[in-house]
Amino acid sequence: MKLKLDIVATDGLARTGTVSTARGSFTTPVFMPVGTRGTVRAVRTSDMERLGAEIILGNNYHLMLKPGAELIADLGGLHAFEDWSGHMLTDSGGYQVFSLNPKVSEAGVRFQSTYDGSYHELTPEGAVRTQELLGADIQMVLDVCSALPAERSVIAAAVERTAAWAERARGAHQRTADQALFGIVQGGAEVDLRIESARRTVALDFDGYAIGGLSVGESRAVMLPALEAAVAELPSSQPRYFMGLGDPIGIIEAVALGVDMMDCVLPTRLGRHGTLLTDSGRLNIKRAEFARSTEPIDNNCPCEVCQRHSRAYLRHLANVSEPTAATLCSLHNLAWLLGFMDRIRHAISKGTLADLRAETHEVWSR
Amino acid sequence: MKLKLDIVATDGLARTGTVSTARGSFTTPVFMPVGTRGTVRAVRTSDMERLGAEIILGNNYHLMLKPGAELIADLGGLHAFEDWSGHMLTDSGGYQVFSLNPKVSEAGVRFQSTYDGSYHELTPEGAVRTQELLGADIQMVLDVCSALPAERSVIAAAVERTAAWAERARGAHQRTADQALFGIVQGGAEVDLRIESARRTVALDFDGYAIGGLSVGESRAVMLPALEAAVAELPSSQPRYFMGLGDPIGIIEAVALGVDMMDCVLPTRLGRHGTLLTDSGRLNIKRAEFARSTEPIDNNCPCEVCQRHSRAYLRHLANVSEPTAATLCSLHNLAWLLGFMDRIRHAISKGTLADLRAETHEVWSR
Repeated sequence: MKLKLDIVATDGLARTGTVSTARGSFTTPVFMPVGTRGTVRAVRTSDMERLGAEIILGNNYHLMLKPGAELIADLGGLHAFEDWSGHMLTDSGGYQVFSLNPKVSEAGVRFQSTYDGSYHELTPEGAVRTQELLGADIQMVLDVCSALPAERSVIAAAVERTAAWAERARGAHQRTADQALFGIVQGGAEVDLRIESARRTVALDFDGYAIGGLSVGESRAVMLPALEAAVAELPSSQPRYFMGLGDPIGIIEAVALGVDMMDCVLPTRLGRHGTLLTDSGRLNIKRAEFARSTEPIDNNCPCEVCQRHSRAYLRHLANVSEPTAATLCSLHNLAWLLGFMDRIRHAISKGTLADLRAETHEVWSR
Repeated sequence: MKLKLDIVATDGLARTGTVSTARGSFTTPVFMPVGTRGTVRAVRTSDMERLGAEIILGNNYHLMLKPGAELIADLGGLHAFEDWSGHMLTDSGGYQVFSLNPKVSEAGVRFQSTYDGSYHELTPEGAVRTQELLGADIQMVLDVCSALPAERSVIAAAVERTAAWAERARGAHQRTADQALFGIVQGGAEVDLRIESARRTVALDFDGYAIGGLSVGESRAVMLPALEAAVAELPSSQPRYFMGLGDPIGIIEAVALGVDMMDCVLPTRLGRHGTLLTDSGRLNIKRAEFARSTEPIDNNCPCEVCQRHSRAYLRHLANVSEPTAATLCSLHNLAWLLGFMDRIRHAISKGTLADLRAETHEVWSR
């Protein structure tokens, strides 16, 4: 078994537990910081260790182009390359490639590199192969990701091709001893297509299941019914991963529907712009009101940044664009979000997720 | 006494010892990393602690404009602002202001802020006052810094005005209980003017003496005689600080002439461009030859970066412009340079500075 989910406690549809792999284990629900090009932006491996992150992402699109999957494999794989001994998941790169206006055929996707304009192809089999070279603990199938809103016919075609590609990926996957492969459910905001996509993906028997093509700009009212319909079709004994989700309300709503894993660039992207996550909601550190504030970002936060730096100091660094500001704000946001996941796991264990959910809505709807 | 130099060993003109202050002590010869705008660029306070840096710089020009010296004073001074408990020295900002083509009169310098174009004035008394507000352990007088090469008459005028301003700064300095004030020797590459400037500065009885206006692009053959002449006039019982020096040969030559302190942005600036300091000389991490190198930057280096990251990984991060590359390369360069200072102090203690000097020339003249 490459991967096993042990559910320790449930609260409604939400569950908390442990995913065991060949590498070790991580707790769920889990937020996975995104290290797109071989590092979480503006921070370093030792920071991720200090933060207690259990699993981070890498991106196949970026890494296959630079420095190249073969090169990373020759150096011992992505874990060795980054000197990261925690868990790692790679995305297939489908999401990035489909944003480049590629030529899509049944065979795969032909696209131009954003690095040098060179032409490349990504196929279901090729994405499996390069992700095997990268060697993350979990890899993702190549799926067809449509922008929303989209015509129903476009979504239906994406579901169809995603299913065909998933079958090819399933057949191509050889590194099964130490690497799990997750299928991806598509279907846009169409509940019946989500159900169909989920059933067809589950029929292929993956190690875990992701919900893709949501949290791409649609409202939460559009997102949640599609998510709920998809999750209801997924086996409860396997991990469920909502791709690209990072806002606190979105996370807790997904968890309440039974999602176990999520990732997003949000905490680091916001951090680079001086926007901070706190127990009282978002805080823009560049605001004049913080010029003389000796308070930390968040009084409740145990992170290195909150333990030693004032809002006034961070505001200054951000306002003069010192790179250190991006690092410190990213570190805090990651720490805050990982702490939020702790609270979610604890609440599920105690059966108090409803309270945390209400509190989260209260704070983050302001 | 605000500041006391205890010389523990000498080797020729070189000396190693301890500078004691109201805050504690630091060892010399010392290299001081530059935290121009309130942080050493791309790294953070905890990094400087881990590196074992004993004293860092701040810059009065930048800090008086943003966030402002009064604001920093209200927040407890620069140490509290940065949460840095080691030693700190602030430069007067003269070097920066003179590079802005300012209006110079006997009263002071009128210049336009590089942040917003607003007009500001820096006077000898004003520079003392703002540096008292910043509250570093050591502050520097406002001097007149000429670009080199320059007409002898220009240099002579700079020496004259520097002396007059030094006297005014000396008289204006009130925070004498916990803050030292250093005078600055000017005189360009003119040996007799260096001697004159040194004598006039020493006559004003400062807590330490700096050599300014060198290492500004002139050759080492031009620089060293001027430095030697100036240092010979300075009291051996007080610290001597060569401003803006950071290359290994320059450092060891200055130390061999009796210099105790130096600073430079070199290690961090080079680091941001992927140029690394090693026991074998400079290394450009972006070169293709390092694409698959599992070696650390420098096999002899005990720093965090060399202990865990390969040249291949750093090359990749630098080539895709991940901010983490700037941080890791800056950290290594700082660690290497601080380690080089360790070796210098050790060599002086053992009486083997000549060997280290020969080795340094051998490696860094390649």
